Amino acid sequence: MGRVTVRRPVLRLGPDGEHRRPDTLAAEEPLEIRVDGRPLAVTMRTPGHDVELAHGFLLTEGVIGAPQDVRTARYCDSLDADGRNTYNVLDVALSEGVPPPDAGVERNFYTTSSCGVCGKAALDAVRLRTRYSPAADPVEVRPEVLATLPGALREHQRVFATTGGLHAAGLFTADGAALVVREDVGRHNAVDKAMGWALLAGRVPLAGTILMVSGRASFELVQKAAMAGVPVLAAVSAPSSLAVDLAEEQGITLVGFLRGPNMNVYAGTSRVCRSPIQPSTAGHRP
Amino acid sequence: MGRVTVRRPVLRLGPDGEHRRPDTLAAEEPLEIRVDGRPLAVTMRTPGHDVELAHGFLLTEGVIGAPQDVRTARYCDSLDADGRNTYNVLDVALSEGVPPPDAGVERNFYTTSSCGVCGKAALDAVRLRTRYSPAADPVEVRPEVLATLPGALREHQRVFATTGGLHAAGLFTADGAALVVREDVGRHNAVDKAMGWALLAGRVPLAGTILMVSGRASFELVQKAAMAGVPVLAAVSAPSSLAVDLAEEQGITLVGFLRGPNMNVYAGTSRVCRSPIQPSTAGHRP
Repeated sequence: MGRVTVRRPVLRLGPDGEHRRPDTLAAEEPLEIRVDGRPLAVTMRTPGHDVELAHGFLLTEGVIGAPQDVRTARYCDSLDADGRNTYNVLDVALSEGVPPPDAGVERNFYTTSSCGVCGKAALDAVRLRTRYSPAADPVEVRPEVLATLPGALREHQRVFATTGGLHAAGLFTADGAALVVREDVGRHNAVDKAMGWALLAGRVPLAGTILMVSGRASFELVQKAAMAGVPVLAAVSAPSSLAVDLAEEQGITLVGFLRGPNMNVYAGTSRVCRSPIQPSTAGHRP
Repeated sequence: MGRVTVRRPVLRLGPDGEHRRPDTLAAEEPLEIRVDGRPLAVTMRTPGHDVELAHGFLLTEGVIGAPQDVRTARYCDSLDADGRNTYNVLDVALSEGVPPPDAGVERNFYTTSSCGVCGKAALDAVRLRTRYSPAADPVEVRPEVLATLPGALREHQRVFATTGGLHAAGLFTADGAALVVREDVGRHNAVDKAMGWALLAGRVPLAGTILMVSGRASFELVQKAAMAGVPVLAAVSAPSSLAVDLAEEQGITLVGFLRGPNMNVYAGTSRVCRSPIQPSTAGHRP
């Protein structure tokens, strides 16, 4: 089985001279996801939680919607030069009646026949595929709870602490309790691992939950939240324009630049229940 | 033409209350790259420098190696609901005699017929495809020069300053002079835009240059450096294990955690010309 971290020698340079010492790096290995024996995607991931990763990927790409849509998920033989299994190929057998994915899953998400390739087509594709309705989720979240999430995420990040090199994604209740935190060299993989955990735990759609990510909020991450029925997505850094557009269209609350008590709410502000505005301090900041 | 930034209303929450104000976001739109009319890839990118992006992508995927390998690169009609061109489809016509890319470019990079999918296969694939030899590049770089690059990169980041939401990639001479800096919501796109600029400027292979990136150093970014003949890759954050493996195999100097005068050299240390070790301060730090 692949390792999550790897030791390598490093030459450290700084004002106090140079030092050779071992350093701990986040492991990165390719994972090929097959569906019924047919290669569907290859992703560069940190080994570990691969079955969850595959489930989360298939969920957020719209291939499966429930744990029973998968019959089996097994490592195939993928032998390295010494004949050892690399555990880098995972074959997912779909249950009877579950349609196999199209060949070009990724491309299909961004294009429709009506309008070539555009942001609007990307939004339409998510609307056509998602099985859940985050917009109808009545959950409310308090800014005080949101403020605790970056710290809680970091606390659960075991590998980041040693490598400084991993993205994290966590699912939390509206009260701020952690359900799961997963790490990966790829930001989308960390989310897929968390989503796959939820699917296998029978928690999808993820009504009433908050997805917290360590980096930026791109279209792709909002798409994954929508596909799993997550009503609130919070990110430490900036969202992109299309991420905000998709959050608005899907009725997802999107919080960015979440740093301590400071945060920007880009979409779905009604879910953030905050104290009434003090007339003396409100408004008029440019 | 798409815009690089987009204005959106945002609700800012903080200890001093809440404020509604417009915020500037990094634009994100899909770009479909076609080769001779056939769709090859869709990437979510920040509009702008699309022709460079397509050239850089095709260069670092091993499809082209010189500017004259491309006959034309043109936007296709990709009409939105109102009949306006979205400028999100770019068709590249290859010159006569340039073999068209395989359908599954991405997958091919990580797999070989000999050993399924593994890190070794990914390294082998780069070795088989690259046209240049960074290992033979005699360039040396000084830590004092490397120390200036994060600041220089940030100085050239026009959009980051307003959005806080973009990755950057810059090409620098060994003296620290900036050749080009490009920004994008996608880290790999920022690198492709810089590489495409270099190809079109007749500067590939990029002997004697340093590629500086704003985030982490993954396998994919080292691969792009190798494919363009870049001998030195420096990153603000951590490298992954496979990034270090590939840098070693390709003879690329890989610098991580480059923050002011502090940096870690993970591969190709002989290119970093540093002062002789002072016997009194060297070694013995755990």
